[in-house]
Amino acid sequence: MIYADNAATTKMSRKAVEAMLPYMTEQYGNPSSLYSFGQKAKEALEDARERVARCLGCDKGEITFTSGGSESDNQAIRTAAHLGARKNKKHIISTAFEHHAVLHTLDRLKREGFEVTLLDVNKNGIVSARQVEEAIREDTCLVTVMYANNEIGTIQPIEEIARVCHEKNVIFHTDAVQAAGHLPISVHEQGIDMLSLSAHKFHGPKGVGALYVRRGIPLEGLILGGAQEKGKRAGTENLASIAGMAAALEESCTNMASAAPKVAALRDRIIEGLDRIPYGELNGDRIRRLPGNVSFCFEGIEGESLLLLLDDKGICASSGSACTSGSLDPSHVLLAIGRPHEVAHGSLRLTLSEETTQEEADAIIRAVTETVTYLRNMSPFWRDLNTGKRKHVFAE
Amino acid sequence: MIYADNAATTKMSRKAVEAMLPYMTEQYGNPSSLYSFGQKAKEALEDARERVARCLGCDKGEITFTSGGSESDNQAIRTAAHLGARKNKKHIISTAFEHHAVLHTLDRLKREGFEVTLLDVNKNGIVSARQVEEAIREDTCLVTVMYANNEIGTIQPIEEIARVCHEKNVIFHTDAVQAAGHLPISVHEQGIDMLSLSAHKFHGPKGVGALYVRRGIPLEGLILGGAQEKGKRAGTENLASIAGMAAALEESCTNMASAAPKVAALRDRIIEGLDRIPYGELNGDRIRRLPGNVSFCFEGIEGESLLLLLDDKGICASSGSACTSGSLDPSHVLLAIGRPHEVAHGSLRLTLSEETTQEEADAIIRAVTETVTYLRNMSPFWRDLNTGKRKHVFAE
Repeated sequence: MIYADNAATTKMSRKAVEAMLPYMTEQYGNPSSLYSFGQKAKEALEDARERVARCLGCDKGEITFTSGGSESDNQAIRTAAHLGARKNKKHIISTAFEHHAVLHTLDRLKREGFEVTLLDVNKNGIVSARQVEEAIREDTCLVTVMYANNEIGTIQPIEEIARVCHEKNVIFHTDAVQAAGHLPISVHEQGIDMLSLSAHKFHGPKGVGALYVRRGIPLEGLILGGAQEKGKRAGTENLASIAGMAAALEESCTNMASAAPKVAALRDRIIEGLDRIPYGELNGDRIRRLPGNVSFCFEGIEGESLLLLLDDKGICASSGSACTSGSLDPSHVLLAIGRPHEVAHGSLRLTLSEETTQEEADAIIRAVTETVTYLRNMSPFWRDLNTGKRKHVFAE
Repeated sequence: MIYADNAATTKMSRKAVEAMLPYMTEQYGNPSSLYSFGQKAKEALEDARERVARCLGCDKGEITFTSGGSESDNQAIRTAAHLGARKNKKHIISTAFEHHAVLHTLDRLKREGFEVTLLDVNKNGIVSARQVEEAIREDTCLVTVMYANNEIGTIQPIEEIARVCHEKNVIFHTDAVQAAGHLPISVHEQGIDMLSLSAHKFHGPKGVGALYVRRGIPLEGLILGGAQEKGKRAGTENLASIAGMAAALEESCTNMASAAPKVAALRDRIIEGLDRIPYGELNGDRIRRLPGNVSFCFEGIEGESLLLLLDDKGICASSGSACTSGSLDPSHVLLAIGRPHEVAHGSLRLTLSEETTQEEADAIIRAVTETVTYLRNMSPFWRDLNTGKRKHVFAE
């Protein structure tokens, strides 16, 4: 099997698994318990917080543990919105190609009376700080722009956007679910006010994430109840997974300098290979993209058929986000960068990891090339729009 | 170490750990992915759902996986409240001694314009269906009463309450976090509309729970985003933990018939032993209580000091809920059953499991008796309220 869907989820690293095991077996104490067995768990929890904070360039008091990226996004955005509402600021700026954890939270806030401006992204899948600046109004309370897009991998100018926000006294949140562990992050230096991440995107466990919130911003509870996480997130702390996340994040950040260029080289090798397929196009900027992300649209094919045939060849890939699979609508991300509906349906996302090999990259190029050709030859709908003739581009 | 704080959290069973490991290592696919590696994960997810449903006596389509009991409580209560609001029914009934995941959610709903009636509990820690019936109004949309109390272990007349609710067409939710895996549950037979549970209370992993919602009640999202869990709970499914929860719940339910009487016998042995300590009293009904729960108040001592000294003797116990430890306020549960403030401060909760032995039970009795006596002898405040004399009840 060639696993090329690391943006959907990753294999846990051995270090992450090993970090979890003690807390799944002998060290099962509740971190909120007073006795030493519980206090040892508390120490491990705070140690994990310290390590996650160090990886992100913030203080440990600024880290809240959650059940994942979606929860972090929901909580961060609702916090900033409601803080704004108290000052009668009910305008939020985001982009058209955010993850649904952001977009659907914004939809709910609209029903609560907030106004939302979704910025267009350019055809390369990037939004500019200038756009943000122009959209900020007197009543803007929050700008939320993802660090890197989950489908097309494009990296946004986070620092410039943060600067613009701070000049206008607006809170800046970024969904860094695809970036954490893969791109350098230093929230204080970059001026980020709130940041969401999810452990299973960087070889940590599923079901756990973190939310960084700059000191001074009072986080609003989303899950209410016990006094865990300083009263900001109720529920017994998921210590095993938190320890796994800390180990995975440390490992990813430590290895980033050596891993990223290697992964990016394989990414570029695949992009170069797939570029040779006619009537296909890379989605998103060629340079400003995640080291592991390859995203293409191929005219005249259905992404789903392509995935299933690649699966037959042992290749795990996706058309876009796993979170929206099963939906018949084309990806909102691909529409946002200007792909027509019928082209957006022919999308393929390959996301690599440090474990991807050159042999796998070459096998991917061969398999995708063959399969796209096969599907086009089969399709009665694959016709030249000008001549009406079937495009036997490979079979001729 | 004698672990007697199983209401705070439990040690994972070997079966639960073993059920998790494949999904933490080789079977890491995302259940939402189309390829067979993802679909295998999806099958495992649905298998776990089927098994959890079977343990609860409902259909698999009625089970939503969450990050734990608190999240389940929040989501269930908000759902029922907002459904009610659409019909202009904005009155909710609960009890004074619910878990904070319920009470704090109700507090937030009060700020949204809901009216909340908190029923008193009797001195035995039980609320009656009659009380519920009398409190139901035309505009009542929800009754939420816990299955068994987390501090004093008293079991509520859930079926009778459910019947009363249904006669008046009111949704009935129960926080069964302490009951699941320990008491028989059959939601359809019992007429329960919504039920919350948490895996780590029955030897499953922390950070995962379930919410049963009767077919026909449209669950409202709390964490918004991707289309996971039929669009009712966003975020990549925490398959490893879900598989661990299913294994633990099945095991607990299978073993319940043999384990519960054994645990209850040890509970009664400890209660009998601690009953001999003067100026102490069992909290909650002697019969209608969880098999593993022992809860006492001892006059003239501080619960926290007692816990720390028991810890020195290798015994893990608590004064009440782990979720509220660190708070200086006396337990709202003990106040609800009529304990005076100063007595409520002298509380001790011992919660047993199938692994507790008779030797451990006897060691607990000895240690608690010695320590209570020691603390009373030390305390300058331990005086007879009538004579003003220090009560050297043991040291005489």
